[in-house]
Amino acid sequence: MTTSGSARTRLSPEQRREQLLDLGVRLLAHRSLDELSIDLLAEEAGISRGLLYHYFGSKQAFHEAVVRHAADDLIAQTSPPSDGEPMERLHTSLTAYVDYVLANHEGYVSLVRAAAGGNESLRAIYEDARAALNNRAFREDLRGEVVPDTPANRLVVRAWSAMAEDLVLSWIEDPHGLGKDELIAFLVASLPAVIAVIPEG
Amino acid sequence: MTTSGSARTRLSPEQRREQLLDLGVRLLAHRSLDELSIDLLAEEAGISRGLLYHYFGSKQAFHEAVVRHAADDLIAQTSPPSDGEPMERLHTSLTAYVDYVLANHEGYVSLVRAAAGGNESLRAIYEDARAALNNRAFREDLRGEVVPDTPANRLVVRAWSAMAEDLVLSWIEDPHGLGKDELIAFLVASLPAVIAVIPEG
Repeated sequence: MTTSGSARTRLSPEQRREQLLDLGVRLLAHRSLDELSIDLLAEEAGISRGLLYHYFGSKQAFHEAVVRHAADDLIAQTSPPSDGEPMERLHTSLTAYVDYVLANHEGYVSLVRAAAGGNESLRAIYEDARAALNNRAFREDLRGEVVPDTPANRLVVRAWSAMAEDLVLSWIEDPHGLGKDELIAFLVASLPAVIAVIPEG
Repeated sequence: MTTSGSARTRLSPEQRREQLLDLGVRLLAHRSLDELSIDLLAEEAGISRGLLYHYFGSKQAFHEAVVRHAADDLIAQTSPPSDGEPMERLHTSLTAYVDYVLANHEGYVSLVRAAAGGNESLRAIYEDARAALNNRAFREDLRGEVVPDTPANRLVVRAWSAMAEDLVLSWIEDPHGLGKDELIAFLVASLPAVIAVIPEG
C-alpha cells in the first residue's frame, strides 16, 4: 500500500497515530510482541524511529497502545448481532472469536502469555478485554433466561472463558478430533451447561 | 525442627537432596518462585550456599527440582480413592485439589505464571503434571460410563482443567458468592456437564 505525499501531510497527528496503531495490529497478527520492535514498525511505516518515539514515547508504551487497539478490534469483531435467537447470537459471537484467534494467532498467544506471565500493564488490558467479553453473558438471554448477574455466576462465566480460550488455543495447535463447526458448537453449548450446574447459593 | 549432628551425617547424598527439596517445597507454599533463592534455602537449611550449588548446580535447576517435587506432591495428594462411587471419588480428588491450592497458593500461582509466561522448562513440568491429572478422567467411570479416550474428549478435559484452575484461583482471590462446598460441587458437576455437550464426531 502506498500513500501519496500530499495525502500523508493532510493527516492530523491523531490520525497518523491511529494509522500507525493499525499497522502495529496487522504486524502483530503473525508475530509475538517480542518481535514487534520500533525498528520493524518504522521500517514498515516508512518513517524514522525518532518520529515513532515521538508518537509513543517508549517500546512498552507502543506495545500497550497496539495491544489496546487489538483488544478493541477483538471486542468489536465479536460483538453479537442485535437480533436473532439468543443461542444463535452466541454462536455468531463465538464464531467471530475463533476466527479472530485464527487470524491473529501469534499476537494473541503472546498477549495471553505476557498477561499470564505477570506483565502488569498488559495483564490489565487483557483483563479489561476479557471482562468486556464476559459481561455480554449477563446481557444475553440464553435459553430464554438472562443469566443473573451474581458473584457466583461471574466467577463461573470468567472460568468458562478461560476454558474457551484454552480450548481454542489447544485446538489450533492440534485440531485433530474436532472440526471447526464442532469446536464452535461445543463452545456455545458449554456456557449454559456450566451455568446450569452452579449450586443454588 | 532440629536434627542432631550424628543423624545428619547418616543421610546419604540422595536423602540429603530429598530433605532439601522437601524444605524448598515447604518454603514455596507461601512464596513466589522469585522469592525462593539459594540464599534463603541455605539459611533455612543451615548449610552453605556452596553445598546447595553442589546438590543442584544452579538456581534454575534448583527451582525445577523443587517444582517437580511439588508437582509430584500435588499428583499424590489428589489421587482419587480406589473405591467408592465415581462421582464421589471425583469429589474427593477435587476437594484435595482445592485444599492443595489453598495451602500452597503463592507457589502455585507463581508456577502457573511462570509456565504460562514462557519459562519452557517450568512449562514442561506444569504440562506433565496437568496431563497426569487429566489422564484420570479417562480411567474414571463418571456417571457409570468411562469417558472414551478420544482426541475431542482430550481437548475438552484439558480445557475443563483450565476452567477449574481459573475458577479456584479467582475464588481464592474473591470467594464472595460461592462457599467452598459449592465451589467443589460445581467443579465435580461441570466435568460430566461439558463432556455431555461435545458434538458427536
